[in-house]
Amino acid sequence: MTGLLTGIGVGPGDPDLITLKALKRLQAADLVCYPAPEVGQSLARRIAAPHIPHGLEEYAIRMPMVASRFPAAKIYDEAALRIGAALDAGRNVVVLCEGDPFFYGSFMYLYERLAKSHSVEVVPGISSPMASAAALGAPLVSRNDILTVLPAPLEDAELRARLAASDGIVIMKIGRHFARIRDLLRELGLEDDARYIEHATMENQRCLALSEVDPETVPYFSMILLHKRGEAFLEGSEL
Amino acid sequence: MTGLLTGIGVGPGDPDLITLKALKRLQAADLVCYPAPEVGQSLARRIAAPHIPHGLEEYAIRMPMVASRFPAAKIYDEAALRIGAALDAGRNVVVLCEGDPFFYGSFMYLYERLAKSHSVEVVPGISSPMASAAALGAPLVSRNDILTVLPAPLEDAELRARLAASDGIVIMKIGRHFARIRDLLRELGLEDDARYIEHATMENQRCLALSEVDPETVPYFSMILLHKRGEAFLEGSEL
Ligand SMILES: C[S@@+](CC[C@H](N)C(=O)[O-])C[C@H]1O[C@@H](n2cnc3c(N)ncnc32)[C@H](O)[C@@H]1O
Ligand SMILES: C[S@@+](CC[C@H](N)C(=O)[O-])C[C@H]1O[C@@H](n2cnc3c(N)ncnc32)[C@H](O)[C@@H]1O
Repeated sequence: MTGLLTGIGVGPGDPDLITLKALKRLQAADLVCYPAPEVGQSLARRIAAPHIPHGLEEYAIRMPMVASRFPAAKIYDEAALRIGAALDAGRNVVVLCEGDPFFYGSFMYLYERLAKSHSVEVVPGISSPMASAAALGAPLVSRNDILTVLPAPLEDAELRARLAASDGIVIMKIGRHFARIRDLLRELGLEDDARYIEHATMENQRCLALSEVDPETVPYFSMILLHKRGEAFLEGSEL
Repeated sequence: MTGLLTGIGVGPGDPDLITLKALKRLQAADLVCYPAPEVGQSLARRIAAPHIPHGLEEYAIRMPMVASRFPAAKIYDEAALRIGAALDAGRNVVVLCEGDPFFYGSFMYLYERLAKSHSVEVVPGISSPMASAAALGAPLVSRNDILTVLPAPLEDAELRARLAASDGIVIMKIGRHFARIRDLLRELGLEDDARYIEHATMENQRCLALSEVDPETVPYFSMILLHKRGEAFLEGSEL
């Protein structure tokens, strides 16, 4: 009997935002793995920490921060080999994933390497857009709205076209792109509708108006939410 | 002391896809409410059923299936009055929401009526696109992909433009629109990349190729996922 590999979403930060199903898989695991920076702590591990059974074997998949394609591929190849060997030995393996595994998550790189040869299951997790909308008290979309999720590193022309043409908008991976994104939103007259949040559901969560944000201090775990019908909506023009 | 109103996401169907946080709010509730059809069972209640404390007072907010705006507004007005009175009496109220409360959810209509006058909290839930991607083994988006979520009732021209211009696509609220959507995808050469799922994570979950789906039997709880770089991705051209 070979083991089961499960990628579990641990949610956006608050340890209580893990699902019962993820918790069960973690409690039945023989080995727990997680992505980690080259030195220091894994965020996914930190989120799941209160739930990791004492004494469970751990494997940190360490990734250089600015990874060119070649070393990243090599690291996933090695991780897949090691995890594959554990599965072949009949052990159940859990991989912790920040947020949801299949929404801009790195679990897909293990999935594509192992799903053809082994039993692999994905347990969805609370994703950062939903957690951020809840924290901000700002619905993402309703009725027949279109929702567009945009990574901030995209080019200005692309972002401008998408921002102009959507109802609900989520801008991810802000970090050092903050000032450029804020200027784009300003240019399009959308700045006042936009809401900024960092470290959603974590102890250091902050919600700010765009004009209050210091672009120099914007962390990786931040996003901007925008709903163009936001105000009308809140004034009760719907239903 | 007035009570706390909490909208909790109960996830897409599997009762184990509820979060610990939602569970705690439910266990501390004095009144549990949920949207329900005019006659018959509430889906949100059915999902949360194993977790509802025995003897907890319940309130089904019943909505005519084809609701014109006026009666729907009236029903939410009445529900807000009744919930507001319970909160004023110091009772904690939980509203069950299928999937995530702020992603095409009806909780926003209670939120907009009560958040200014009462303490209202939203606990995010596992949303159907993430649950469907996990069940299909099909990552939604990676790297700098754009994700677009499209409600099927939108007009053909709008859908065609969005389908042509996105990396990852989620088409919600398929139901009686299935045949039209399938024909649009066919016309754009996207049919083979698209995957259909109904009742994701429920006991009657089904995953089908578009050509296998009988348009007459497509239920409301179904969606189509599409990733245009899907095949290249799965062949390892990324990382
Ligand atoms: C590689 S993506 C991972 C997304 C994750 N898999 C999910 O489902 O939320 C990283 C981006 O997610 C967003 N993010 C993740 N967690 C967040 C949090 N707690 N608060 C704000 N943004 C967050 C940020 O935009 C960050 O740049
Ligand atoms: C009004 S929206 C509610 C979405 C919900 N709040 C969420 O976060 O998933 C209803 C649509 O969600 C999708 N949906 C919800 N649950 C689903 C499930 N278990 N399987 C497939 N689709 C689902 C269907 O497209 C359905 O038409």
